[in-house]
Amino acid sequence: MTNDLTLTLTRHINASPATVWRGWTDPELLVKWFAPNPVEVVTCEVDPTPGGLFNVIMQMPGHDPMVAPAGCVLVAVKDARLVWTAALGPGFAPNPPYDTADDFYLTVDLTMTAEDGGCRYTVKAMHATKAMHATPAAVQAHEKMGFFEGWGTTTDQLSALAEAP
Amino acid sequence: MTNDLTLTLTRHINASPATVWRGWTDPELLVKWFAPNPVEVVTCEVDPTPGGLFNVIMQMPGHDPMVAPAGCVLVAVKDARLVWTAALGPGFAPNPPYDTADDFYLTVDLTMTAEDGGCRYTVKAMHATKAMHATPAAVQAHEKMGFFEGWGTTTDQLSALAEAP
Repeated sequence: MTNDLTLTLTRHINASPATVWRGWTDPELLVKWFAPNPVEVVTCEVDPTPGGLFNVIMQMPGHDPMVAPAGCVLVAVKDARLVWTAALGPGFAPNPPYDTADDFYLTVDLTMTAEDGGCRYTVKAMHATKAMHATPAAVQAHEKMGFFEGWGTTTDQLSALAEAP
Repeated sequence: MTNDLTLTLTRHINASPATVWRGWTDPELLVKWFAPNPVEVVTCEVDPTPGGLFNVIMQMPGHDPMVAPAGCVLVAVKDARLVWTAALGPGFAPNPPYDTADDFYLTVDLTMTAEDGGCRYTVKAMHATKAMHATPAAVQAHEKMGFFEGWGTTTDQLSALAEAP
């Protein structure tokens, strides 16, 4: 599913909402699935409270870490909904504008709801237009960069982790 | 008071925290003080809930309205704290990067606490650096543009409104 400015991925995961929540908010679990293999998570800090830090830095082996400003948690409803954005840092302070036309800030709105003994898991990735009144180029760029493949892969990884006995 | 990235203004207002809160969240009151005279507020919509709209458009008589993307409420603790940002729009979606080097996105963190029969009112205006590792030019620009004069003037206006019998 997609619209002009939001990419949405939804899945059934055969684990409780609480388990999926832990997969997103416990750094020791997040590092295990957040990056699409072979990319690795090299820094992972999450403070699941409004205004809290959301800082995940990834690295492709043999390359420099993908450094970006730390993000900010906006909504944290335990076992139900986590919203974070890269456009703000801890304490809601605005992050600097990005340097290159290929970068963009995301807001990610995650929900997890009990369903059939498991969990309905939905990721909404919200983008800005590149400029006011511009075409939604950032969304198309993100989709071309493999949003569905990348988030699909990592959601498989999250599912596998959450569903492990 | 100021630091590298945050400008802070604090005042005693001779009215209750609830009255000051209403001054910020009731559009019919907000339009009366938000713009430094002779600037006028021509559009004013506030939904004081996390993810809600914060949209105030000002106009200098004889000039075009100062159009900007709508902002987003982040924290809304009635009669105590209101945080909103221009970097995100309603529903936490990122706003587009600004077009010119003179523009910047603010996050504003307002607190109102009972003090001496009135209210301690504090405005923290948080800025991004212009780019990662850059000097805090946006803050200095905002200070030069008259942050303390402008917010001081409008805080006088808010005080007068809140303190009116």
